[in-house]
Amino acid sequence: MTLKLHNFFRSSTSTRLRAALNLKGLEYDYIPYVLRDGETRRPDYLAKNPQGLVPTLETGEGRFLTQSLAIIEWLEETHPEPPLLPADPDGRARVRALSYMIACEIHPLNNLRVLFRLRDQFGADEAAQKDWFTHWVTLTFDALEAELSRSQDTGTYCHGETPGLADCCLYAQVWNNRRFGIPLDTWPTLARIQEALEHLPAFTRAAPPNQPDAA
Amino acid sequence: MTLKLHNFFRSSTSTRLRAALNLKGLEYDYIPYVLRDGETRRPDYLAKNPQGLVPTLETGEGRFLTQSLAIIEWLEETHPEPPLLPADPDGRARVRALSYMIACEIHPLNNLRVLFRLRDQFGADEAAQKDWFTHWVTLTFDALEAELSRSQDTGTYCHGETPGLADCCLYAQVWNNRRFGIPLDTWPTLARIQEALEHLPAFTRAAPPNQPDAA
Repeated sequence: MTLKLHNFFRSSTSTRLRAALNLKGLEYDYIPYVLRDGETRRPDYLAKNPQGLVPTLETGEGRFLTQSLAIIEWLEETHPEPPLLPADPDGRARVRALSYMIACEIHPLNNLRVLFRLRDQFGADEAAQKDWFTHWVTLTFDALEAELSRSQDTGTYCHGETPGLADCCLYAQVWNNRRFGIPLDTWPTLARIQEALEHLPAFTRAAPPNQPDAA
Repeated sequence: MTLKLHNFFRSSTSTRLRAALNLKGLEYDYIPYVLRDGETRRPDYLAKNPQGLVPTLETGEGRFLTQSLAIIEWLEETHPEPPLLPADPDGRARVRALSYMIACEIHPLNNLRVLFRLRDQFGADEAAQKDWFTHWVTLTFDALEAELSRSQDTGTYCHGETPGLADCCLYAQVWNNRRFGIPLDTWPTLARIQEALEHLPAFTRAAPPNQPDAA
C-alpha cells in the first residue's frame, strides 16, 4: 500500500500533515498541485476532494481522505506508533484543543482564499491583509502562550517530551506566519518549542522550502 | 461527577456541544455567559479558557476542557455509548472530515468576532457582512452537498442511520445561518438531513431558543 499525498509545498495544512507522516515514519508519493493555476478546481481533483482544497491523502485502497486533521486522526488509528496523541483522555483533549486553537481560529482566517476575498470584497491591499493576518495570529498565539507557559503538561514540546499533533499545527503555522514576517519574540514559550521542533528531521523535512515543488 | 457547561445559547460551537452531550444522555449544569458584556474576557473565565471563548466543559475533577471538537472527542473516549463516530477508521475519517468542513471552513470565518473585525477594519455594514457570511457558507455547503449526495455512506444522517459528530456540526451551522436568513433550498441533501435532525429531541433540546439564557 503506497500512500499518495496530493498537496502544495507552501500550504500550511499540507505542512502539518507532512510532519505527521514523517513522525509516523511513513513514506508517501508526493503529488504537487499548482493552486494559482486552478489545478485543485478541476473535475478530476474535485472527485477526490469536493472542496478543491489540499491536502488529500490517497490510501492505496481507493480511498481519498480529506481535511488534514481528519487524516492525521486516521493515521493515528491505523498506524498507532509512535503516537501523536497522549494515552489519557484529559491529555488527548488538551493536545486536540491546542491543535484546534490553531486549526480552527488562525489558519481558516488567514489562508490564501480568505486574503483574496478580503481584496476582492473590501479592496484590502497588502498592508490591510497583513493587519488582518497578524490580528488573528496574535489573538490566538497570546492564548496559546498563556496556556503553554502556565501548564505543567507543557514540556520540551507542546505536551511533554514527545512531539505530537499540536506541534505539527504550531510548526506549520509559524511557517505560514513568515509570509508576513511575524516574529515569535512576544511568545517565548512558542519560540522555545518551535526551536526544538526545528532540530527534528521529521519537521524540517516537512518544511515548505524542502518540498519538490518549492520554487 | 457533575459536568458544568460554560456557554452561550446562540453560540454555534455551544450548540454542537450541547447536541453531543444530549446524544450521550449526559446531564450538565448550564452556566450562561453574556458575551456582549465581556463576561468571557474576565480573568476568572480566562483562567478556565485562555481564549475567552465558549464553550468550556468543567469535568467535575477540576479540569476545564476547551474547544468544542476536542471536548466532543473527550466525551467519545470517556462515555463511548452511544458512539458519535463510526467504528472503522475510514468511516471515522469521513465523519471527522465532514465535521471539520464546517468547523474549520465555515464557522471560524463567520462568528461574531470576525464580523466585528470586518466592521472595524473595513467598515463592513450589515449587507457586506451578509455577503461575506453567505459566501463561506455557500462554498462549503456546495462541497458538503456534493459529498453527501454522491456517497453511499450517507444515510438518514450524514453517515448511516445514527446521528453523530458531523450531524452536531451541521445542525449548529444551520441554526447559525438563520442569523442572515440563508435557506437550505439549494442543498437538498443537507435540507433532508437537517429535517431528520429536527425530529430528534437531543438536537431540538440543544437549539438556541430552548436554552435558559435565550432572550
